[in-house]
Amino acid sequence: MSKLLIVGSMAFDQIETPFGKSHKTMGGSANYISLSAAMFHAPSAVVSVVGDDYPTAFIEALSQRHIDTSGIEVVAGGKTFFWSGKYHNDMNLRDTLDTQLNVLADFCPIVPTEFADAEVVMLGNLHPCVQMKVLDQMSTPPKLVIMDTMNYWMTHTHKELLEVIARIDVLTINDEEARQLTGEYALVKAAERIMAMGVKYVIIKKGEHGALLFHADKVFFAPALPLAEVFDPTGAGDVFAGGIAGYLAKTGDYSFENLKNALIHGSNLASFCIEKFGTERMLSLTEEEMYERLQDFKDLTQFDIVVRN
Amino acid sequence: MSKLLIVGSMAFDQIETPFGKSHKTMGGSANYISLSAAMFHAPSAVVSVVGDDYPTAFIEALSQRHIDTSGIEVVAGGKTFFWSGKYHNDMNLRDTLDTQLNVLADFCPIVPTEFADAEVVMLGNLHPCVQMKVLDQMSTPPKLVIMDTMNYWMTHTHKELLEVIARIDVLTINDEEARQLTGEYALVKAAERIMAMGVKYVIIKKGEHGALLFHADKVFFAPALPLAEVFDPTGAGDVFAGGIAGYLAKTGDYSFENLKNALIHGSNLASFCIEKFGTERMLSLTEEEMYERLQDFKDLTQFDIVVRN
Repeated sequence: MSKLLIVGSMAFDQIETPFGKSHKTMGGSANYISLSAAMFHAPSAVVSVVGDDYPTAFIEALSQRHIDTSGIEVVAGGKTFFWSGKYHNDMNLRDTLDTQLNVLADFCPIVPTEFADAEVVMLGNLHPCVQMKVLDQMSTPPKLVIMDTMNYWMTHTHKELLEVIARIDVLTINDEEARQLTGEYALVKAAERIMAMGVKYVIIKKGEHGALLFHADKVFFAPALPLAEVFDPTGAGDVFAGGIAGYLAKTGDYSFENLKNALIHGSNLASFCIEKFGTERMLSLTEEEMYERLQDFKDLTQFDIVVRN
Repeated sequence: MSKLLIVGSMAFDQIETPFGKSHKTMGGSANYISLSAAMFHAPSAVVSVVGDDYPTAFIEALSQRHIDTSGIEVVAGGKTFFWSGKYHNDMNLRDTLDTQLNVLADFCPIVPTEFADAEVVMLGNLHPCVQMKVLDQMSTPPKLVIMDTMNYWMTHTHKELLEVIARIDVLTINDEEARQLTGEYALVKAAERIMAMGVKYVIIKKGEHGALLFHADKVFFAPALPLAEVFDPTGAGDVFAGGIAGYLAKTGDYSFENLKNALIHGSNLASFCIEKFGTERMLSLTEEEMYERLQDFKDLTQFDIVVRN
């Protein structure tokens, strides 16, 4: 078991899908990542910021899962980050209806001393300068830094983004973002370009089409589970990354072979996330359910072909 | 080894991609399927129609691969089916520039007597009535009928299409077509609907995102190989289907477990097809190359996760 440090946003999300509309629900990358990573019981801490309108019950949901929440700054008189979005029929496209950064706008992360030597650091999607500030506070160089980002930072903070990318080991990014970041259409070529930026492992997320893991000249594919119904895809990418971070921290094995397993775990956890609104399903998920569905992933992809004539 | 009967179109294709423009090249579903299936050496025959402008060398390319070509009707004074299309940068979309059905418009397939008892029948994309006429000529009920189709027949010959579907065992169809045929967006539900039409195995093709195999409540996923360059995707779906048909005829095993292997072989062969214009790469492909790349498919998807805590 290695120590895992998680940084990301905490938010109120209000989500509309063809199936209905949520109330202000628990959201933000730090929550999705933490709930997912917690399934593997590595000693973890989360760094984030909320306003004093944020329910203590939301924070307790993490501390009950033995996540150190001392790095969550509660800004007196501040309002928590709010996001509202609407999905259409095909669930691959969404419109952002409202974004209120609130306390997230001035977020200055403070890493708890006990976790400044964390072996695994998971940087959720945030301003690259905030991600950088976390790395700067580490007392020992982490063995593995995983980072998620999005197109917004590529457009608005390109230089800062590249500076963080040069310091990380694993980048998770979706297919369109990989194309935007590199100018390459073929994902194989996009991944090569990103590795040339100093990243050891590139994970390209393709939503319902699964995810690709690139490392040197090797590639692995983790499918998404084909589902009859996607209720709400919000947070699936964060849960995927959180599962990877949690599993790697649990095993302490950062080899390509073990990253394959981490991706399968991440994809498995993401398949639960989308069954209900927001973090709802992750809050009720049991280990038994998780390990049971893992077998479906084996059945989905494992074959026994004879590789000769 | 079981006998394999293949029916489909033979054509001149003229293809334009961002990489260049082909001359009038060997095309049509029957050619792609035959060249792919021939890699497995099951006794095969092909039924199709061409005009007397069709080069004998194209027919000899099949007979050299020990495919019975006596079922290819050569219409004196007739012109061979011609198709011309243009791909854009993302290679997933193409415009048809020209379609001249010519002799294909009056095609009445004649199954060679020796192949009327074929165990495996592969119906390439054609008018459903033509596909039906082939099934009507079988002296013994085939053990496995595989059928490919396209959106055009769903729109224009819906009733006839459903009649053929009710008589087949395996349907290969792309994701958008599966949605159009069933009105279901989720592929799991679309596959269920198609199975309810009387089909035992449904194979949904997702292009660069691989293919799904559905059977009762089981599902298997065969990935596409992530490639740095797609030169010309024409015929990839036919090569995929041909590889499935050829492998199943070779092994004579029509179980779900063996269909998994068939899909991997099909996907492997399709990965070669797209490396050059039209059928060019399939004409030069060796068994050694085929079996070598099969290992890449194992590396791409096989993992060794522990399915318990």
